[in-house]
Amino acid sequence: MTSFSTFINLFEERLKENKFPKNPKTLYTAAEHILSIGGKRIRPVCVLMANELFGEILEDAFQAALAIELFHNFSLIHDDMMDKAPLRRGKPTVHELYGNDVALLAGDVMLVKAYEALAQTHQSFLPELMKLFNNTAQQVCEGQQLDMDFENRDDVDMEEYEMMITQKTSVLLGCSLQMGAIIGGAGKGNQEHLYAFGKNLGIAFQVQDDYLDAFGNPQKVGKQIGGDILANKKTFLLIRALQTAAPHQKQRLDELLKERSENKVDEMLNIFKDCKVEEWAMEAKEKFYQKALFHLEEVAVLSSSKEELLKLAAFLMHREN
Amino acid sequence: MTSFSTFINLFEERLKENKFPKNPKTLYTAAEHILSIGGKRIRPVCVLMANELFGEILEDAFQAALAIELFHNFSLIHDDMMDKAPLRRGKPTVHELYGNDVALLAGDVMLVKAYEALAQTHQSFLPELMKLFNNTAQQVCEGQQLDMDFENRDDVDMEEYEMMITQKTSVLLGCSLQMGAIIGGAGKGNQEHLYAFGKNLGIAFQVQDDYLDAFGNPQKVGKQIGGDILANKKTFLLIRALQTAAPHQKQRLDELLKERSENKVDEMLNIFKDCKVEEWAMEAKEKFYQKALFHLEEVAVLSSSKEELLKLAAFLMHREN
Repeated sequence: MTSFSTFINLFEERLKENKFPKNPKTLYTAAEHILSIGGKRIRPVCVLMANELFGEILEDAFQAALAIELFHNFSLIHDDMMDKAPLRRGKPTVHELYGNDVALLAGDVMLVKAYEALAQTHQSFLPELMKLFNNTAQQVCEGQQLDMDFENRDDVDMEEYEMMITQKTSVLLGCSLQMGAIIGGAGKGNQEHLYAFGKNLGIAFQVQDDYLDAFGNPQKVGKQIGGDILANKKTFLLIRALQTAAPHQKQRLDELLKERSENKVDEMLNIFKDCKVEEWAMEAKEKFYQKALFHLEEVAVLSSSKEELLKLAAFLMHREN
Repeated sequence: MTSFSTFINLFEERLKENKFPKNPKTLYTAAEHILSIGGKRIRPVCVLMANELFGEILEDAFQAALAIELFHNFSLIHDDMMDKAPLRRGKPTVHELYGNDVALLAGDVMLVKAYEALAQTHQSFLPELMKLFNNTAQQVCEGQQLDMDFENRDDVDMEEYEMMITQKTSVLLGCSLQMGAIIGGAGKGNQEHLYAFGKNLGIAFQVQDDYLDAFGNPQKVGKQIGGDILANKKTFLLIRALQTAAPHQKQRLDELLKERSENKVDEMLNIFKDCKVEEWAMEAKEKFYQKALFHLEEVAVLSSSKEELLKLAAFLMHREN
């Protein structure tokens, strides 16, 4: 099987070949910017890996991978606008560099370009890929709306949060893998197990993300610790803490959530620790990781061909940034 | 042939059947809002009419029509955000009612829903329809970017303006007609003539739009006259005036373009009149209208079957609002 790093290189080459038009310059410079600041390219590589599980990698898989990466970057541009985020991967965000109007339109045109890439796939795949991609894209939009809705609510429970995260981030990983499986000629059962592998891996990934933001090593994470706490973001950790805190801790958490002070990070983290949120997060991550592995196990191909996907999953689980 | 008004009713019924999901409520209430405030439904009806030119109206045409109308409304939501427009068709715009974040996301999800409708068309049509739709959607984004770029330039010439308008508004009319032709089974030549009919009709429509904004009857137009002048918008009329004005008029136009006063409308209109912009606009509109009619003439079907499209074109040319 082709290694993850080889796949990244193959995909990066393809991405470079796929130039946007030159004009209007403002529009496409903005679109180029978000693609140029990198990212791990996990989703497009998942398309290619899932294809390879079932057969020779087809050109269609590269087109689907491109569609997924363009879609992902469209959603980053628009999400950053909504979050008013100044930085992404340590670089200024698109709206920060080019203004909201250009960012809005650059996101729009990238979404159109995602569908253009998808439309390059063979006629025999297109309806099935479109259906999956459309469902996923709709869920991502809905997840983002729920995330915004949750900002104004203080009674979000774990189930709701998990559903929001699933829609906002996990389904795209599932979709990437299922697209590769479709192109590889996999049957419905194998497709669905790969989708579930991706979806659960995505949730585990988000738990890890929330964990690193609170308990990570600042040197390794490469950003300030406690960003989510300062932004009063609902996270797996906060929801767990609110669920399990003793009355006096709960009261203090509610007070801290109303404060805008920079100093609250340490106190919040202490309450998290008292509530054993750290241990809980590790268990939750493990639970979703194991679910993911179960579904990968169920995919009816030789175990040896799953090794690279297993490595990728382990890498995502143990990453420190 | 089916009449325009019958087609509107058929399409409106279909639009009503096509409900958005209930949740997230915020997101889909916003999306419903823009569809509910109406509009003339010219584009989707063009899909149906073009299909009928070549054969029985297929279910696919309704799906393509829905895709076109959803796309059009996606672009209205995002354009209104960029223009900071408080009103659309006399009703509050989506961002005005629900805020920028919801408007952004409602536009996004409507674009996805447009592709979802398109994906309902038969597998044999889908690749061709997707290609046309993607090209068009990209051009609409590019046209909107050019429109914004032009706001910061005072040397926009007629050719550039025509190109911008073509991309921003006319190609969608051409696309609607060509989609209907594809679904009706038309050959390439007929498809292209219908596209050119729509494109030129769209430009003529925009000249009329610019004209009504400056010289229309306020009672009939239903809005304040001179809105474009107050917003310092580049229009066909302004570009023509700048081209043909005598030096002292040109100087005064440049001064007025820097002013933000409400009183400048009358003076601008007087210069427009001195430069015979009104007559020029009528001639320009007629030129594009005749080009459009030439292409419709070239479509190889019985003349009698073109009557409803001719009526629609005449209606668009002579509208007073």
